[in-house]
Amino acid sequence: MPVSSLSRAIPAASLDLAELKLMANALRALTMDAIEQAKSGHPGMPLGMADVAAVLFSQHLKFDPADPAWPDRDRLILSAGHGSMLLYAALHLLGYEDMPLDELKRFRTTHSRAAGHPEYGHAGGIETTTGPLGQGLATAIGFALAERLGAAHFGKDIVDHRTYVIASDGDLMEGISQEAIALAGHFKLSRLTVLFDDNNICIDGSVDMVESTDQLARFRASGWHVLRIDGHDPEAISAAIDEARASDRPTLIACRTVIGFSAPTKANKPDAHSSPLGTKEVAGARANLGWNWGPFEIPDAADAAWKAAAARGKQDRQDWIKRFAQVPADRKVVFERCLTKSLPAGLSEAVLAAKRGFVESAAQIPTRKASEQVFDQLSRLLPELISGSADLTSATLNKASLRAITPEDFSGHFVHWGIREHAMVAAMNGLAIEGFIPVGATFLAFSDYFRPALRLSALMGLGTIHVMTHDSIGLGEDGSTHQPVEHLAALRAMPNLLVLRPADGIETAEAWEIALQNRKRPTILALTRQPVPQLRQDAETQNRSALGAYEIAAANGEAQVSLFSSGSEVQLALAARDQLESEGIATRVVSVPSFELFAEQPASYRAAILGTAPVRVAVEAAVRQSWDGLIGIDGDFIGMNSFGASGPAEELYELFGITAKAVADAARQQLKRKGVS
Amino acid sequence: MPVSSLSRAIPAASLDLAELKLMANALRALTMDAIEQAKSGHPGMPLGMADVAAVLFSQHLKFDPADPAWPDRDRLILSAGHGSMLLYAALHLLGYEDMPLDELKRFRTTHSRAAGHPEYGHAGGIETTTGPLGQGLATAIGFALAERLGAAHFGKDIVDHRTYVIASDGDLMEGISQEAIALAGHFKLSRLTVLFDDNNICIDGSVDMVESTDQLARFRASGWHVLRIDGHDPEAISAAIDEARASDRPTLIACRTVIGFSAPTKANKPDAHSSPLGTKEVAGARANLGWNWGPFEIPDAADAAWKAAAARGKQDRQDWIKRFAQVPADRKVVFERCLTKSLPAGLSEAVLAAKRGFVESAAQIPTRKASEQVFDQLSRLLPELISGSADLTSATLNKASLRAITPEDFSGHFVHWGIREHAMVAAMNGLAIEGFIPVGATFLAFSDYFRPALRLSALMGLGTIHVMTHDSIGLGEDGSTHQPVEHLAALRAMPNLLVLRPADGIETAEAWEIALQNRKRPTILALTRQPVPQLRQDAETQNRSALGAYEIAAANGEAQVSLFSSGSEVQLALAARDQLESEGIATRVVSVPSFELFAEQPASYRAAILGTAPVRVAVEAAVRQSWDGLIGIDGDFIGMNSFGASGPAEELYELFGITAKAVADAARQQLKRKGVS
Repeated sequence: MPVSSLSRAIPAASLDLAELKLMANALRALTMDAIEQAKSGHPGMPLGMADVAAVLFSQHLKFDPADPAWPDRDRLILSAGHGSMLLYAALHLLGYEDMPLDELKRFRTTHSRAAGHPEYGHAGGIETTTGPLGQGLATAIGFALAERLGAAHFGKDIVDHRTYVIASDGDLMEGISQEAIALAGHFKLSRLTVLFDDNNICIDGSVDMVESTDQLARFRASGWHVLRIDGHDPEAISAAIDEARASDRPTLIACRTVIGFSAPTKANKPDAHSSPLGTKEVAGARANLGWNWGPFEIPDAADAAWKAAAARGKQDRQDWIKRFAQVPADRKVVFERCLTKSLPAGLSEAVLAAKRGFVESAAQIPTRKASEQVFDQLSRLLPELISGSADLTSATLNKASLRAITPEDFSGHFVHWGIREHAMVAAMNGLAIEGFIPVGATFLAFSDYFRPALRLSALMGLGTIHVMTHDSIGLGEDGSTHQPVEHLAALRAMPNLLVLRPADGIETAEAWEIALQNRKRPTILALTRQPVPQLRQDAETQNRSALGAYEIAAANGEAQVSLFSSGSEVQLALAARDQLESEGIATRVVSVPSFELFAEQPASYRAAILGTAPVRVAVEAAVRQSWDGLIGIDGDFIGMNSFGASGPAEELYELFGITAKAVADAARQQLKRKGVS
Repeated sequence: MPVSSLSRAIPAASLDLAELKLMANALRALTMDAIEQAKSGHPGMPLGMADVAAVLFSQHLKFDPADPAWPDRDRLILSAGHGSMLLYAALHLLGYEDMPLDELKRFRTTHSRAAGHPEYGHAGGIETTTGPLGQGLATAIGFALAERLGAAHFGKDIVDHRTYVIASDGDLMEGISQEAIALAGHFKLSRLTVLFDDNNICIDGSVDMVESTDQLARFRASGWHVLRIDGHDPEAISAAIDEARASDRPTLIACRTVIGFSAPTKANKPDAHSSPLGTKEVAGARANLGWNWGPFEIPDAADAAWKAAAARGKQDRQDWIKRFAQVPADRKVVFERCLTKSLPAGLSEAVLAAKRGFVESAAQIPTRKASEQVFDQLSRLLPELISGSADLTSATLNKASLRAITPEDFSGHFVHWGIREHAMVAAMNGLAIEGFIPVGATFLAFSDYFRPALRLSALMGLGTIHVMTHDSIGLGEDGSTHQPVEHLAALRAMPNLLVLRPADGIETAEAWEIALQNRKRPTILALTRQPVPQLRQDAETQNRSALGAYEIAAANGEAQVSLFSSGSEVQLALAARDQLESEGIATRVVSVPSFELFAEQPASYRAAILGTAPVRVAVEAAVRQSWDGLIGIDGDFIGMNSFGASGPAEELYELFGITAKAVADAARQQLKRKGVS
């Protein structure tokens, strides 16, 4: 089926240059007005990139303000998020309902949709949260990949759009940019176009002061189509975007611009970057632009031009709606689940079957292996699940039977990301926004490599799932560099992030169920490299891990001791309990797969789980920080207070004193200290 | 003064190829033996890069095993740290005292110097800890920069050496590599040579599967000299290193190698990468190499060749010692302080003067501004201090009067790192190892971008200092992406890292004193963007912040309430105390600039500071996690439990309920709940 796609209405040579200048100046004027009003903001980029934006919106971008969520719209990612006013001004002029003039007037004030940096969910047209440099560019890999996946999985008749990125020199300096560039080049993401605001100014001064890289050569080295243009020449801009659209590779358009364009003394200077220009400079800029209107005032001609630009996509969207109506239901079902972020039936049954399997086999296996078994079943039910690993597939075990995608064939469900944890997670954010269920994997210690992107998952409320294996000193010989110690605490500190550390096969199955059900926050699955025993036998009960913490072994009689633990150390707590019980010390054990879920339980449940035993001991092969909230100041903690070491896992547990004996000893001593026995 | 530097003894064309092969095979045999013995390890890289290593050690590298710490030795960084056996085997064969055969036999066992990945401090010849990919390459920027700084600051007669890096495809995929490559190219670090193990195999399969970047073109784009050779051809290797030494730019030598070279079925396959080859495969490899000796057995000819290589640098070191003896004392003083990591006199006086200044001026200033004032004084006393900022110099305020270095002039003391937080901190690790005092800066929220490198600072015990400004929602309008919330807790979770969050000018001065005195662990200085009042008047007292926590305001009478706080929120705790005291509720306030230092105090002091007041409330504009250990399960916490928002700082404090009133309310309610009043 031939598919319509917006083509430029008029050849570049016959663009209405006066109208485009007016459109661009409207962006500039609103930018200056909003920033002056807020007494805060970054005018430099919007003033510089206004011409590019005017051409993009009026000639190329496929969108319809009447439905900002239209699935087949082109995506525009403002990676240079500090230039947020460029986007807000455009959205306002285009008539996006969420962005009335009042929002611009309230730019950077509390509760405004026009936040300091663009925030996903604040308004239609903001495709993703940006600001931390490099993130937008790398997230755009996810958007562009989602388009290719969508075209392959759901059909080119309903998924056929492009992704544009506006990026700054800062985006290109951040390391994550190289990971993104390499991935886009490798996968030949030809629907991706990066408009580089090549203004040669950073905060500290001229970019030349800190960068000698030939960016065009750099992108070319990774298989991109590249070109350089005058970013203030509408014809050149439009022709370049045409060229990008015709390329079979991703395209970099380096747009030579003047930061703070039109500002009489601050243009082309770092001063224009991140502070209001000030009344005098704004007046000069308005004069230079020939902009004779008052603050927040838009002349009719500019308004009409922007409204005309807004109307361009209407027909395309109508056509798409018609095409979509004709798509047979069986081909639409997964696509629609992606749109609504709903789940198919049968997942709970698969989880139950997996739980039964663990009880039956009773095998000692690593939780990463248990995870693979569960994942294998669940992934068969979820074509919208896109898994991947940062070159550790054979260790993280999250491929199962999935077929890998290649630059030539996007019909698979697994991405070999290469050793690019950071771009992997940023791209997962893009995939998640597009409705896929992205699963990414590496060792837990290397979660540090992707924290900035994970933070955006949590901030945006995206259901990314992170398979983090080798979750403690239990990984053994690879040593301290690979052994997470502080990572569990550091991850548990992050708002809106679920951290799950299952203790056995059953808890692992439950953890997967929880992860999949949480489409509005990311989940970390912390899994062992080393085998652990199957602790629970109650396959049939509801998801106990979903309570965050629960009593996995009761005391015989009134508990004198409560032991708390997670993951591979729950077995130590249970062994310590056996020992203490054998000495007549009534001891209960609480498994704590998730601090966050526990914190969400009713106060009465939390109190019951904390219990009334006078003695509390926690054991986890990690730092204490997270556990204070359960065991209190006078509780004992058996765990790590240093980095790990290289050696066999069993030896390391002995070396660092993380043993059942140490747990029992601590309980006995605390009993004595507190005068209980 | 003409300076000797090792030149190759013989032209490449007349190398003793048989001897070099024997030397390389000795590395291969020891690698296989140690890994088989450990039943764990990564044979692929050492087998592949043995020829390169044999040529480098025997023909080019300047070193003397008699003094592994000889300051003017060449540095070899094994960025591909998983190939640790390559380095251990070489060090052993060269006669490094720390690496007897027994250590190789105990490879990857507990307490062995031969850890899974090379760990700084375990043995001479291990220049830095590597393993997390990309770190070695980026740390090498610090080493190469230190050499240039040393030559400029101390004299080319005593600092004149080179830095070599062995890097893998994984190192080059990690984003941090681009930051490092760009910096090396920009600063024209011609003394840096990267030997890229270009074997086209990663764990998941062929590198082609995940990477289409032309690495030579990529490095060339950043100003590197590049060449590609057969990594098994000693003449080509030696000639390439000669070419690198002659270049005025950093050099990439892509060495085409066969991973697992000589292994009959596993060579050139991912199987060779990270698992023992197994008895049969090892036997085949030995046969292929013509290696007829037993495990851990080295034939005399190989031993002699390695010992001859080891002897090459002896004369050079003797000459250096003579030259060094002739250097006048005034030119050596800072150099020697770098070697011993000692500090000059006068720092405490400068800190005291700064403290007095804050009391006298009584001005409300941000702690970042207070930091600048202290830093300005201290940096004048410390020529070994190398400061820098990730393109936020005007915000992080850690340049003061320092002059920036440029590619042409390394006599300055400030580095404009560009927006490259990750490589900045990795390079700071290199600078710190070389004895400089590196100070690096960005916003606290962006500490996430450099956590993997910071972790290595902490693991290696390096005194890097991190000026982290904009440390809470108090930064205001830039919004949630820029506002740290979980970062303080996440950083406090890291072993061997000092986190200091000063409350006013005096605490800021004290924090700088602490940071400089801690040359064996990194320090985070969390500083405000917004002004805070000068709380303390006791400029003359000892460094109270060094206690970690101390009573900044006593209760009138027996305390009913203890309030705990840090940084910009201490003023809120003090205001709440005033209110509570006015109501007759005896209230004390504890300022907690550092959890780590507090934890190191004697139990009696800690108990006294926790106090006996039945009510405990903490306030910090961040998550609660860190504070449970001070206020207990039943204490109240006023802070953040979500991400921040965009708006003026004062409004945000109200919005998130972080106010003196909220603190006082919580205290009153807790008093009631506990039935105290």
